[in-house]
Amino acid sequence: MFEKVLIANRGEIALRIHRACREMGIQTVAVHSTADADAMHVRLADESVCIGPASARESYLNIPAILSAASITNADAIHPGIGFLSENATFAEMVEEHGFTFIGPTPEHIRIMGDKVTAKKTVMEQGLPVVPGSDGPVTTLEEAEAVAHSVGYPVLIKAAAGGGGKGMKVARNPDQIKEAYQLARGEARAAFGNDEVYLEKYLGRPRHIEIQLLADMHGHCVHFGERDCSVQRRHQKVIEEAPSPALTVEQRAFIGALASKTTAAIGYRGVGTMEFLYEDGQFYFIEMNTRLQVEHTISEMITGVDLVREQIRVAAGEPLGYGQSDIRFEGHAIECRVNAENPETFLPSPGKIDGYHAPGGLGVRVDSALYDGYRVPSHYDSLIAKLVVHGTTRNECLMRLRRSIEEYVIGGIQTTLPLHSRIIAEQAFKDGNYDIHWLEQLMAKGQ
Amino acid sequence: MFEKVLIANRGEIALRIHRACREMGIQTVAVHSTADADAMHVRLADESVCIGPASARESYLNIPAILSAASITNADAIHPGIGFLSENATFAEMVEEHGFTFIGPTPEHIRIMGDKVTAKKTVMEQGLPVVPGSDGPVTTLEEAEAVAHSVGYPVLIKAAAGGGGKGMKVARNPDQIKEAYQLARGEARAAFGNDEVYLEKYLGRPRHIEIQLLADMHGHCVHFGERDCSVQRRHQKVIEEAPSPALTVEQRAFIGALASKTTAAIGYRGVGTMEFLYEDGQFYFIEMNTRLQVEHTISEMITGVDLVREQIRVAAGEPLGYGQSDIRFEGHAIECRVNAENPETFLPSPGKIDGYHAPGGLGVRVDSALYDGYRVPSHYDSLIAKLVVHGTTRNECLMRLRRSIEEYVIGGIQTTLPLHSRIIAEQAFKDGNYDIHWLEQLMAKGQ
Repeated sequence: MFEKVLIANRGEIALRIHRACREMGIQTVAVHSTADADAMHVRLADESVCIGPASARESYLNIPAILSAASITNADAIHPGIGFLSENATFAEMVEEHGFTFIGPTPEHIRIMGDKVTAKKTVMEQGLPVVPGSDGPVTTLEEAEAVAHSVGYPVLIKAAAGGGGKGMKVARNPDQIKEAYQLARGEARAAFGNDEVYLEKYLGRPRHIEIQLLADMHGHCVHFGERDCSVQRRHQKVIEEAPSPALTVEQRAFIGALASKTTAAIGYRGVGTMEFLYEDGQFYFIEMNTRLQVEHTISEMITGVDLVREQIRVAAGEPLGYGQSDIRFEGHAIECRVNAENPETFLPSPGKIDGYHAPGGLGVRVDSALYDGYRVPSHYDSLIAKLVVHGTTRNECLMRLRRSIEEYVIGGIQTTLPLHSRIIAEQAFKDGNYDIHWLEQLMAKGQ
Repeated sequence: MFEKVLIANRGEIALRIHRACREMGIQTVAVHSTADADAMHVRLADESVCIGPASARESYLNIPAILSAASITNADAIHPGIGFLSENATFAEMVEEHGFTFIGPTPEHIRIMGDKVTAKKTVMEQGLPVVPGSDGPVTTLEEAEAVAHSVGYPVLIKAAAGGGGKGMKVARNPDQIKEAYQLARGEARAAFGNDEVYLEKYLGRPRHIEIQLLADMHGHCVHFGERDCSVQRRHQKVIEEAPSPALTVEQRAFIGALASKTTAAIGYRGVGTMEFLYEDGQFYFIEMNTRLQVEHTISEMITGVDLVREQIRVAAGEPLGYGQSDIRFEGHAIECRVNAENPETFLPSPGKIDGYHAPGGLGVRVDSALYDGYRVPSHYDSLIAKLVVHGTTRNECLMRLRRSIEEYVIGGIQTTLPLHSRIIAEQAFKDGNYDIHWLEQLMAKGQ
């Protein structure tokens, strides 16, 4: 097992990884920008190295600085966390070339899944269902029109290199396809430096269902059930829950087994997540994330398994040591992503925390690097806390979540806690009756 | 169900009860002394009433003030919490006489179990084993000598009205009995205004094992397994764990069923705990606590059941609605009681919290009313936080506990966190190999 792990990230996820390491008896190295010198992950790590100025490009995305920090501190392995360099195949390669272990999949798997067209092709070969659409990128408007005609309107045009909703446009009928095609390519070029787009059938009221996977280097793979991440705003997840209120036990077992078999068949290793759209009893693969995800917490709450520990274990070459039947599901978990944002305009709200009280008690987990007096910097993602609640039943979970949101005090800045209060008070949410458009429709109504 | 509950307590347990009420949709009334005006339970409750000055006798023990607060706020029920008036039968009676529901057992059961001699007699009639000893109080030295001779030395002399180690003396041989008898009576008189003592066989290396019980008003009773509270200092619990590392599955089922049967047979209702000494495979009943206990948290962590909610439900007359076989045990839980005390001298360390960061993440629960800038008053019990950790296995739980203690920052005052670090680093603790004298012996060695 590793003796020392460098955590190439910041905020709550850096703290999350630190916690897993400490529980395994592994020393930790924090890296940080000048803006994060007082951050909790820096305070708690065994060692810390400043890797550059506030701008992420010069610090958390600065590969030479991170590799130097690993050398100086004699780290064995590097955990990339979430975002930043976590899905950068070149980084993974360089980490290994410099003699460190990259805690994640092989660069090859990152590349395959990083390109949505290749990813889709790869999993289709293994029998996973995908949304009907173009067989690879569409390069002309005429080709786009032909595919749209064959799969039927409405259609979605998506950047091949995309993510987070950038470079995605819907054409509801033949009159809209030209503009949608051109806008998607333009956005894709601006956001990713790559204007390849592909086209697929647009589902009207799908849910976002994803399967948490874990594979070792010895051909074993298990899944930790699904997460329902349909409560989204601008393709960003806002609330996630496990299990999904929409699936039956049989559907869960079916899609979990299929995703797990595919993951093993392609020789994948580490944690990963296959994301699906789900509508009318059908699953459609959309992408695979080759890293830990923000919402891994809810899978942990219903299975009791520390997924970051497992990720580190398999990266060190250890076999899983258990099979699918050893993974037991208990109760229900919901996560609220708490962002430092105005809960109505979603404008960032950085600043100094003045008054802090995190909820506690039975079934309540808070993953956050906040503390009273901490200054939330303006340079990074606005996620400041994950409020995760577990209950024996979904209803118990909902009541506990309501109480926990009420109890959570984050003074001095604005947060999205009021948005979460509003969402969970909705009858549709209480009924589990929502799709990926539901939140935006709700918010449009309220304005 | 109640619409509004008055919480006749303070600190973390007041917050704990508030949380259960909020999750049930019940409004809460906090009462507080002038010293607690800024306390978290006051801040979070729907309403609050100041019931007197800092001295507990004039506030948290002030029955007329509490009843007035309940009348003014139109509360339906009063939850007494832990300590203060929670085992005061007169208070329970007065609460009911004034038309409120007392969230606890009947005054009669509080009285029976509050007197250790009567308690012992009551449970013996139901077949529960007790430590061999005097058949009721011993009133003369000669009688004490005769009983000691018959059960065999060493013997323990205990105040009938006692608790917390006051009025307890050991006589290891006939030469020591006179002094032990006189000291025990003197202490009992001073502490409880009642110098009745009884005598029992002194066990050399017993563990403290207790069974969590819950009974409704309709004759149903279940148990939530045992807690091992053997890590004690001066008869005060320091660390508790569930399940006990010393018991087999069969022993657990045996003593749990016996305690549950006895509880049902005497017509008890509400939550309660039967405490036993355990040595060489034998259990000996010592007392029953007719209230919630500090360490109820660890039973909640391994069963997923909110015991305060269940306590409130049965007080409102609801039937349990489930049986013993519905209670499932998962994993292992440990609680550390964090006190505002010097960790070596145990002198109280009240004062202002300057810097606060509670540990979080998977399997970590903190029950505490602390916040940065809060002033820990000097007038009350020094318990300021309960750090509760759950893991799939005892070893995972221990690693998680170590990490959580390391991560816990409580600035500005001294706390017993360093004592907990020391205890959990001991091989004997790691092995689960300790008895009720172990901690004191460890500390004597270290000095």
